Amino acid sequence: MKYNYLNNLPLEQAKESYYAHLKQVGFAGKTEVIAVGDACGRVLKSAAYAHICSPHYNASAMDGVAVKAAATFGASERTPLRLTPADYVVVDTGDPLPERCDAVIMVEDLVECGAGEYQIMAPVVPWQNVRQVGEDLCMGDMIAPAGTELTPALCGALLAGGITRIEVLKQPLVGIIPTGDEIVPPTADPAAGDIIEFNSTVFKGMLGSMQAAVKVYPITPDQKEKIRAALEAALAACDIVLISAGSSAGRDDYTGEIIASLGTVLVHGIAIKPGKPAVLGEAGGKPVIGLPGYPVSAIVIMEEIVSEVVALYYGKAMPARETAKAVLAKKVVSSLKYSEYVRVSLGAIGGKLSAAPLARGAGVITSFTKADGVLIVPQNCEGIEAGTEVEVRLYKPLSQIRNTLIVTGSHDPLIDEVADFLARRGAPFRVCSTHVGSMGAVYAVRDGLAHMGGIHLLDTESGVYNQAYVEKYLPAGTAVTVKGVGRVQGLMVQKGNPLGIKTFKDITKGRYVNRQRGAGTRILCDYLLAQNAIAPEQVEGYRNEEYTHTAVAALIAAGNADAGLGICSAAKMYGLDFIPICNETYEFLVDKRYLDDPMVQAFLEVLYSEQFQNRLEEMGGYRQ
Amino acid sequence: MKYNYLNNLPLEQAKESYYAHLKQVGFAGKTEVIAVGDACGRVLKSAAYAHICSPHYNASAMDGVAVKAAATFGASERTPLRLTPADYVVVDTGDPLPERCDAVIMVEDLVECGAGEYQIMAPVVPWQNVRQVGEDLCMGDMIAPAGTELTPALCGALLAGGITRIEVLKQPLVGIIPTGDEIVPPTADPAAGDIIEFNSTVFKGMLGSMQAAVKVYPITPDQKEKIRAALEAALAACDIVLISAGSSAGRDDYTGEIIASLGTVLVHGIAIKPGKPAVLGEAGGKPVIGLPGYPVSAIVIMEEIVSEVVALYYGKAMPARETAKAVLAKKVVSSLKYSEYVRVSLGAIGGKLSAAPLARGAGVITSFTKADGVLIVPQNCEGIEAGTEVEVRLYKPLSQIRNTLIVTGSHDPLIDEVADFLARRGAPFRVCSTHVGSMGAVYAVRDGLAHMGGIHLLDTESGVYNQAYVEKYLPAGTAVTVKGVGRVQGLMVQKGNPLGIKTFKDITKGRYVNRQRGAGTRILCDYLLAQNAIAPEQVEGYRNEEYTHTAVAALIAAGNADAGLGICSAAKMYGLDFIPICNETYEFLVDKRYLDDPMVQAFLEVLYSEQFQNRLEEMGGYRQ
Repeated sequence: MKYNYLNNLPLEQAKESYYAHLKQVGFAGKTEVIAVGDACGRVLKSAAYAHICSPHYNASAMDGVAVKAAATFGASERTPLRLTPADYVVVDTGDPLPERCDAVIMVEDLVECGAGEYQIMAPVVPWQNVRQVGEDLCMGDMIAPAGTELTPALCGALLAGGITRIEVLKQPLVGIIPTGDEIVPPTADPAAGDIIEFNSTVFKGMLGSMQAAVKVYPITPDQKEKIRAALEAALAACDIVLISAGSSAGRDDYTGEIIASLGTVLVHGIAIKPGKPAVLGEAGGKPVIGLPGYPVSAIVIMEEIVSEVVALYYGKAMPARETAKAVLAKKVVSSLKYSEYVRVSLGAIGGKLSAAPLARGAGVITSFTKADGVLIVPQNCEGIEAGTEVEVRLYKPLSQIRNTLIVTGSHDPLIDEVADFLARRGAPFRVCSTHVGSMGAVYAVRDGLAHMGGIHLLDTESGVYNQAYVEKYLPAGTAVTVKGVGRVQGLMVQKGNPLGIKTFKDITKGRYVNRQRGAGTRILCDYLLAQNAIAPEQVEGYRNEEYTHTAVAALIAAGNADAGLGICSAAKMYGLDFIPICNETYEFLVDKRYLDDPMVQAFLEVLYSEQFQNRLEEMGGYRQ
Repeated sequence: MKYNYLNNLPLEQAKESYYAHLKQVGFAGKTEVIAVGDACGRVLKSAAYAHICSPHYNASAMDGVAVKAAATFGASERTPLRLTPADYVVVDTGDPLPERCDAVIMVEDLVECGAGEYQIMAPVVPWQNVRQVGEDLCMGDMIAPAGTELTPALCGALLAGGITRIEVLKQPLVGIIPTGDEIVPPTADPAAGDIIEFNSTVFKGMLGSMQAAVKVYPITPDQKEKIRAALEAALAACDIVLISAGSSAGRDDYTGEIIASLGTVLVHGIAIKPGKPAVLGEAGGKPVIGLPGYPVSAIVIMEEIVSEVVALYYGKAMPARETAKAVLAKKVVSSLKYSEYVRVSLGAIGGKLSAAPLARGAGVITSFTKADGVLIVPQNCEGIEAGTEVEVRLYKPLSQIRNTLIVTGSHDPLIDEVADFLARRGAPFRVCSTHVGSMGAVYAVRDGLAHMGGIHLLDTESGVYNQAYVEKYLPAGTAVTVKGVGRVQGLMVQKGNPLGIKTFKDITKGRYVNRQRGAGTRILCDYLLAQNAIAPEQVEGYRNEEYTHTAVAALIAAGNADAGLGICSAAKMYGLDFIPICNETYEFLVDKRYLDDPMVQAFLEVLYSEQFQNRLEEMGGYRQ
């Protein structure tokens, strides 16, 4: 009998039944007693009460002399009082108040009269300049309730309260079992068909920030008995087990079946995308979760479910998630069947937060490296229109998001290079660059979604770059173009140019790979096609669209295509032959309001620097 | 010659000259090459570029059959096409696309016809259902610029890009030298005059979150040569050295002098409060910072200076700090001489954020354990009025601050106990309790600064508790009182009652310790004084005011006072004799808008639970 079911449970329902089951089988944290000095970040098992007062004795709060306050009454500027050595005891800050003293006179208020005598011009009242017992903390006061995560200050307070050892929850040990015949350990040189196992590294990092310890098991092939044996070993050693991949309903997907054979599967298949084919199970009182193999899907399950299972272990409420309101920059279409998790990059321009959706493929880990947050489109919602205010769950602190220069537009690696130069100079902001093509840059700057954008837009009538477009799309003059670089555009072709491509016309000799609509390079392609009287239908691969020069180069190098327009540096990177076609003017369109912004200025300063010119020369195909 | 200077440099000026000097002497991070699998949280030395594309081969995106797309053209429902085994290759998701194939047909779109033949009803286009080379990441693409802190997703992207080892900045090793003759290691049983050394634990915890490693040196007595030797040893081993205490200008304060003898003191004395007596120095190219001995002062310097010195080591911009706007709940008075750091607790009631200043003593570590943020009052500002909108630097995520039940008012340990019960039940919110007295609770609830408040306000005319006050101060009926507990108030006196105190009248026999104005217990005291025809001037210690029952008990137990009014549980905790005076009604005043709030409901549910009644019985002096 083949175990092969996959349902589509709404997320909240899946969580509810899973967590209820885990509680019912007694899943809860173990504890240990450790030194308070090592307890920062740990979670209190029970309420902590001060054992002693702090200060635990009456302490002088000043350098000076301790006295009996009553003996100083009557002292004034007119009737100064003289203290003989019998009347006082010298004390430093922190010294215990001597027997029979109840106040301290500051050294600054003492006038030396010789023979150890002092004059004072004012009385002190009882307990003046004294830190009385318990000023900070009283014995018996609750320092923190159960479940508190110990901050540095709380550890200090515990020690101040005379507590040197404390019972905290042990970090849960989470076992990760990577599975799959095609999976190989990290390598710089994988064979075709090898899939580099990086998911466990991502999970390990995420679990670290959930206060969990991690044990990664060796990669297990797609064989039922081997996976079952690995799971049994992990269950014996760990508090929580994650099985990576094999959670779907394909030919070699055994996760659900194996968990069911050792325990209970509560949920298999959740109505979220990405993340659907997750398995939520339990064996021996321990959570066993089958994670999807695609990294993006797995990360969503880690964030939504695994983080809450760890919270459950700690007996804590579910982790709160920071959110912020943002205006959606681009329409998002969503399926009615799933709740969709759309990674977004966030930009703060003129105080307003905007959210731009990133690539949504389940295999695209870079959509997470670039994400500032995630927008959750509810199930039963067909999509959200551009301009709608949405709530975004944040991945980064708002202060960091606000401190970001948004450079959008045409792809050129030089933007990342400038960002790197800025970072190495310790610039107090980060650069976020997105590739939306030159026309995308024009719209983004017009709509206040970017500080600046890279453009290279050929006016096919005048042969002049950029100006005509700026005048047409930004007639109010709210943005200006500033000098960027000159660069060579050309045809990238296989090394050795096997098809003998010499001019643009020759692209019909092979399979072309195109750029997306709105890209400056696409406009150039269409212009050259018209000039050469070639119809798009005559070009094989015209509809094969990529977003960057490197993506085009990568496909030619891989043999997926024979030619594509792009810049010299991309061809050079991939060892491709390069046939120069034209020189173009790559400029930056800058919103006038931000022309003097220190971030924009710093960006341009790097761009125009001599050091950066050297870098451009290394990259190749640029000129001043 | 005695080194003994202390200036009062504005913070920004102090930072500027210090950091400029550190840069000038070449203070910067060392690097190491580590496995990417262990690099989460570490900081990139240089920009990281993908070594290989991801995917690095054309991979099937589906389970199905790989074909040459051109061979499927023309297939339709009317004219289905038959694929023979020679036309296709079976592939699973992730399999490499076989030679000569350029598309995949999903298994769902295949109709089996026997003999290994399939019928298809639609064509596929080239690269359909294929993850082409570089879909996620292209060789040569910058994955992250220099200075990036590696997130789990970035580690995944590095591995996907064929990078297995990476150069990152070494964690700086920070040496901490605790100094002071009176300082002792953490103990549950310190002698009078012993000061428990907890500062290094606080620093260690803070440094951990700054990505620094820590070495704590043994406690060094206040002897110049010993401190100098400890500093020399630390300089030989560490990247940054912190000397704890001795940074002021007192008799035994040698930090500045010792740093100057081994290197340079750039700043001694900063115009901030707390934190003034800090020493910013350098020796052997390494930062050496003298921290004030008072924990609160030291923490401010850790946050303001040490965190930025660590950022400097990492070559990063200064750490961004999260802030939020809040309405100041109580006037803050400040000195013109200093920029003042006022710890605040934050409450979010009805969407509005309010900031309540906490105790400001430099020795009060609990002001940090309770703080949600800090309000910085600029130098040259005399103070800020209540009701002003201020910017608060946050210590906790806003989501956590928003998820907080604010219970203010009269001190009773039962509030902390309820909070602990709630935490143990995994309540999805925290309880923040502040002790502002019963009248403080009335005002706070009236002004929307608290959800609820504990009150026990005796109407001296009717002898009835609470109702008269609520009617007088909340005439609009915006709040209601709900059942709390009955409790016994009485006189706490030394064990064995040496002064023979029998009734309230007898407090004139010894030194009294009072509660603050506005406290229900203070109102009771004043009522009893009037009833007994005793003038406040006749009561020694009448002006000695404390904020909690335990503080009063602690002072009596320490012998600082002979009697004080308070509740039975406090007397019991301190082993004091207790002379019951009256039974009172301790109730909760609840803002009507929040009566049905799940947080308020959960609080009351615990309060009325049988388990909690048992806890009250243990504590003593309460009745239903």
